[in-house]
Amino acid sequence: MKALILVALAVTVYASDAGKPLVLSSQGSFFVGGETKTSKDLNANANGPGAGDAGDVTINQMYVQFQKPVNPDQHRPVVMVHGCCLSSKTWETTPDGRMGWNEYFVRKGRSVYLADQSSRARSGFDATKMVGVKLGKVPPSDLPNVFMASHQTSWLLFRFGPSFNTPFPDEQFPTQAADELYKQMIPDLNGFLPTPNPTWGNMASLAVQLNGAVLMGHSESGFFPEQAALVNPAGVRGIVSIEMPCETTLKPEQISTLAKIPILVMFGDHLSDVPGRFAQIWPNSLDSCNKFVKQVNDAAGDAQMMDLPKMGIKGNSHMLMQDKNNLQLADLILGWIDEHVERKGAHHK
Amino acid sequence: MKALILVALAVTVYASDAGKPLVLSSQGSFFVGGETKTSKDLNANANGPGAGDAGDVTINQMYVQFQKPVNPDQHRPVVMVHGCCLSSKTWETTPDGRMGWNEYFVRKGRSVYLADQSSRARSGFDATKMVGVKLGKVPPSDLPNVFMASHQTSWLLFRFGPSFNTPFPDEQFPTQAADELYKQMIPDLNGFLPTPNPTWGNMASLAVQLNGAVLMGHSESGFFPEQAALVNPAGVRGIVSIEMPCETTLKPEQISTLAKIPILVMFGDHLSDVPGRFAQIWPNSLDSCNKFVKQVNDAAGDAQMMDLPKMGIKGNSHMLMQDKNNLQLADLILGWIDEHVERKGAHHK
Repeated sequence: MKALILVALAVTVYASDAGKPLVLSSQGSFFVGGETKTSKDLNANANGPGAGDAGDVTINQMYVQFQKPVNPDQHRPVVMVHGCCLSSKTWETTPDGRMGWNEYFVRKGRSVYLADQSSRARSGFDATKMVGVKLGKVPPSDLPNVFMASHQTSWLLFRFGPSFNTPFPDEQFPTQAADELYKQMIPDLNGFLPTPNPTWGNMASLAVQLNGAVLMGHSESGFFPEQAALVNPAGVRGIVSIEMPCETTLKPEQISTLAKIPILVMFGDHLSDVPGRFAQIWPNSLDSCNKFVKQVNDAAGDAQMMDLPKMGIKGNSHMLMQDKNNLQLADLILGWIDEHVERKGAHHK
Repeated sequence: MKALILVALAVTVYASDAGKPLVLSSQGSFFVGGETKTSKDLNANANGPGAGDAGDVTINQMYVQFQKPVNPDQHRPVVMVHGCCLSSKTWETTPDGRMGWNEYFVRKGRSVYLADQSSRARSGFDATKMVGVKLGKVPPSDLPNVFMASHQTSWLLFRFGPSFNTPFPDEQFPTQAADELYKQMIPDLNGFLPTPNPTWGNMASLAVQLNGAVLMGHSESGFFPEQAALVNPAGVRGIVSIEMPCETTLKPEQISTLAKIPILVMFGDHLSDVPGRFAQIWPNSLDSCNKFVKQVNDAAGDAQMMDLPKMGIKGNSHMLMQDKNNLQLADLILGWIDEHVERKGAHHK
């Protein structure tokens, strides 16, 4: 019943918002982090103006694009970080052309910051090893791995259906527009990054720079908000972790750090309904996150698992920010932020 | 005098606009183009869920992000395409934090479409050869070249000054924020693209999809609007080409195609003031474009060269959309569009 009311609410809000002008107090883009690397392996081409160029390049920076609503200080800013083989496009217009979470959150009065992970999309990556391999200075086996997710893998791993091009009967992902999702899927170059992943520190720095923010991650980046808080919790006012494996071997002092931050974990449907080599990924992920949520709460934290099918919300895929009921799920997150991050804000400042 | 008035106008508009809310009738993102490639070389990592994955991936697509003002049909949409080693960030917030052309054009009533070139940033790239090299299936020398521009190269090539970290006395680029520009500079993977460059066809398709648009390119992409029109001129209503070498060996029928489209070419200052290996690039580029403009006009076309120093506008760098007088230059372009594309629109439809 609660779920039904939320569906109705989401549909109403969307229908009334979609045609309305979007009013921004400001927008823009900038970078967080980045360091200077000096290298001779910047260009393997013997011709052209950059030939044999040696010098400094900037690596590990994180590109951030933001929009602020009118009266942006009424709510905490929300930072959204995409998953594997994707970019911030994840949060924008859905594959079938509906409003994405980026705009919906702004229309709900939140400043939204979309970050391309360091080494992905507009953040760039450190290509010196690629140049070194081409120049014969680096053995090919030392080339970091790059990962492209095929259409076939995506369909199963993202739980669109039990076999390629067959959707689940209640599937919420707009599978007729799957080709548009595949265009979003770009090579994952995280193998080129140092350890620990600089995106974690960049997210922590961004949260400080914003004087407190809610960090949201998905899939590959689902646990990045926690990792960011473990680098520096100072700016992390809330965590939204969507569909990922959770770390269950954190030290007590790490759990204690996370127990001071409200945490929401969300999972979609059909976790056990994918056959073959992907069968165990989602049940194991959910198990690990249930354990993690318990660890945090046992340490007097405020962690909540939204296991959507248990709440009566059925058929959600792994790409739930693009699913047909994406705004209903956005409302769940917005409501959780209001309740756990903002109303209880005094506890957590 | 005309230039002075334009300076005053630009400053006035910027000062009055900067704090004003931005009202959009809509915004979003989508892809143009893209094709399916089947490959076994998608992931060299023997572990993980994608191990040994063979299947289909989408390549050569072009990511496009747009914003429309209220009453978007009063002006032609403008498509902006970035240059080498950069992304659409080029057109956004400047390195020193001022408004970029993307927002300024929207505030001036234009729908703006920012495209990441195919193989760059959020458009992704075809990484199968990289995987093949790592797997030992492809010889390292067959790896396409990737190009990173160093800080030192950028400073000279972008004409910030006569030697690294020394600006020209009248330099318009905000050199104190050069580090922020370097964060925008990302590996150029155009070597991974097929011939002809799919970005050209994608730009032509986008122009058709928009029922007519002005295409703008810069540097590496400066002549892409012309190349797009040579693929299919149907949607190309105007061309703005900024700081690049022009093709001067086009066939008469190609010149004839371009002579039906109003063309603006813009160059900044200090073209001959860069020493060493970059010394000839800009004088040669300007020469080639003066020839090209003459070829088009000799074929009864409407091509205009804005050689800024000759117009009394001094000190502009190669990154003139980020220069301190960037909005003055934007006004020159907007005025040219009004005059040559829109008022004369009847001729060119």
